Amino acid sequence: MPPQRFLILADGDFDPMISKTANAVIRYLPERVVGVLDRATAGSTVEDVLGFGGAIPVVGSISDGLALEPDAVLIGIAPMGGRLPETWRGWLLEALDAGCDIWSGLHTFLADDPELAARALERGREIRDVRRPPAGLTVSSGRARFVEPLVVLTVGTDCNVGKMTCQLQIVRGLVERGFRTRFAATGQTGIFIEGSGIAVDAVVADFVGGAAEQLVLETAPDADILLVEGQGSLNHPGYSAVTLGLLHGSCPDAMILCHQAGRKYISEYREADWLEIPPLTEYVSAYETAAAWVHPSKVIGIYLNTVSLDDEQARRACREATQATGLPCTDPVRFPDDTALVDAVIARMAGRLPESRTA
Amino acid sequence: MPPQRFLILADGDFDPMISKTANAVIRYLPERVVGVLDRATAGSTVEDVLGFGGAIPVVGSISDGLALEPDAVLIGIAPMGGRLPETWRGWLLEALDAGCDIWSGLHTFLADDPELAARALERGREIRDVRRPPAGLTVSSGRARFVEPLVVLTVGTDCNVGKMTCQLQIVRGLVERGFRTRFAATGQTGIFIEGSGIAVDAVVADFVGGAAEQLVLETAPDADILLVEGQGSLNHPGYSAVTLGLLHGSCPDAMILCHQAGRKYISEYREADWLEIPPLTEYVSAYETAAAWVHPSKVIGIYLNTVSLDDEQARRACREATQATGLPCTDPVRFPDDTALVDAVIARMAGRLPESRTA
Repeated sequence: MPPQRFLILADGDFDPMISKTANAVIRYLPERVVGVLDRATAGSTVEDVLGFGGAIPVVGSISDGLALEPDAVLIGIAPMGGRLPETWRGWLLEALDAGCDIWSGLHTFLADDPELAARALERGREIRDVRRPPAGLTVSSGRARFVEPLVVLTVGTDCNVGKMTCQLQIVRGLVERGFRTRFAATGQTGIFIEGSGIAVDAVVADFVGGAAEQLVLETAPDADILLVEGQGSLNHPGYSAVTLGLLHGSCPDAMILCHQAGRKYISEYREADWLEIPPLTEYVSAYETAAAWVHPSKVIGIYLNTVSLDDEQARRACREATQATGLPCTDPVRFPDDTALVDAVIARMAGRLPESRTA
Repeated sequence: MPPQRFLILADGDFDPMISKTANAVIRYLPERVVGVLDRATAGSTVEDVLGFGGAIPVVGSISDGLALEPDAVLIGIAPMGGRLPETWRGWLLEALDAGCDIWSGLHTFLADDPELAARALERGREIRDVRRPPAGLTVSSGRARFVEPLVVLTVGTDCNVGKMTCQLQIVRGLVERGFRTRFAATGQTGIFIEGSGIAVDAVVADFVGGAAEQLVLETAPDADILLVEGQGSLNHPGYSAVTLGLLHGSCPDAMILCHQAGRKYISEYREADWLEIPPLTEYVSAYETAAAWVHPSKVIGIYLNTVSLDDEQARRACREATQATGLPCTDPVRFPDDTALVDAVIARMAGRLPESRTA
């Protein structure tokens, strides 16, 4: 079966800063996106709205969207309040009638909705809730430390800094150098893009590590390098459990620390001036300390998300991060020709660590 | 409604080392246990089997058990394979017919079993699955750091070392000194004993911290001291996520480190000589480091589970732990008159830390 082509539902929130899932799918799979449904920006191209994505059209009705002949409707934003709006339900029913599958990353599983489930069954279509945990998860056993490929996990100074983007940006460079490289997706957007994965934050808490381990074991065969998508941050009051479970379950050989330049406070907590983001060197130490509790690992590079800076500021910020940490640093979205992180992974393959990490 | 009196179902596994849940309920609520159902040891007293528990009878049939007039049947062991054996189903149906509620800590929720649910409804009885997460959990916000009582969390060198027992042993000493002391249960056995709580390992991973936070906020009012039951260990490959989520969600002011004397390897992993338990000082450092990522906290004492030692060895092991860590250490199960940990909590109430922790 050829890969499915998507109509992305992003109604009301299609925006460079808001529709994170929709935007990432468009960035990494533009050839598989036939259109975006958003009544507010209908008539534009995706490039007009996001600054990338080319001539992919934004449409204002489900019939215009279905006319673009998608194989599936992909829900690319979270609706307000988390519940499925009635308008969307109507659109999804129409899409099923037109022969589309539905891909959803919502917390509420659409396949459990009696009306949608019945319609999908009637039409022989599939509703794919990518956050639904696979059956049979168990407590992790540490077996991930024995897989053959080099396992590289992205870790972060906060949520939403670019831990998935970092991996997706370096996959290509590694493949071009001849390494069989696999991406192990751990969140809904990554799963949409890769077509497989486990949303580790949606599993029962006892099984976070086990889910990461299962993902690594399944993705490891025939790979030289396995890039695991990180989640959260060790000092995030809400998500640190998932971060540590993923670290201990996946047993990475190396880590890339991801940070958004200019961010001062851990997300969502800034109202109370809580929690200030400490210096990068403290994160390097924290992640290496926490990894070593189960399986030693080193940070080998810094991914700096420089979206809020201009080119010159971005170059300076990367230099400063390198000076502070002794680690290679770049923003591979802004500087796609800078191979600093690709080089760091390849050096680690050859058993070499950055000088700052060998002391 | 007066507290319920239990018939404990422990068939096939009633043993000092195996039926952990049953044994803890008997130890802390002996006046509420009318009997134990176990065909293998039927005719004995609980004291005969466990070495404590007095004249509570062990019976060999459900009718003998129901003749003791329990208000509820409490499932005190996990059946082989995790599924409800057919024999047990018959017993539970008989118990519902006789007017009993059912308390269960199994992973599989008994209230979701159509036959048991229908019978409970018919008889007007309740099936209480204590591991079922409460509705409406959210991501933690850090609010637990603002509650009035002193929050003390037990942390461990491994699973199953005595993190619940430690708290239950020091509650009494604190109450005797006039402190309004509450116990916040985070696991099935603690919930059975306290009658309330949240099984934090059974919630969705994103909500581990939120569950701990909700528990602290709910238990805090009118308390001077809040003793939170810890789970797992930061270096446990399977359970570290739950451990860190609980630490960051509950924002403890102080921690008591729990260890079983003589244990060399993290549980369940010892076959491969993996993972060796590091010295206590490394745990003190790890827990204080990890706490400080969100909210600073200090270890104020060591609970040493000395079940495998004799009295003299136990005294020596406690002295050695104190010499190594500079922290007060005792086994309050073996030495109920030793108030070292109670004193440490009270000193922390008064703003004092052990000398080793103030440097």
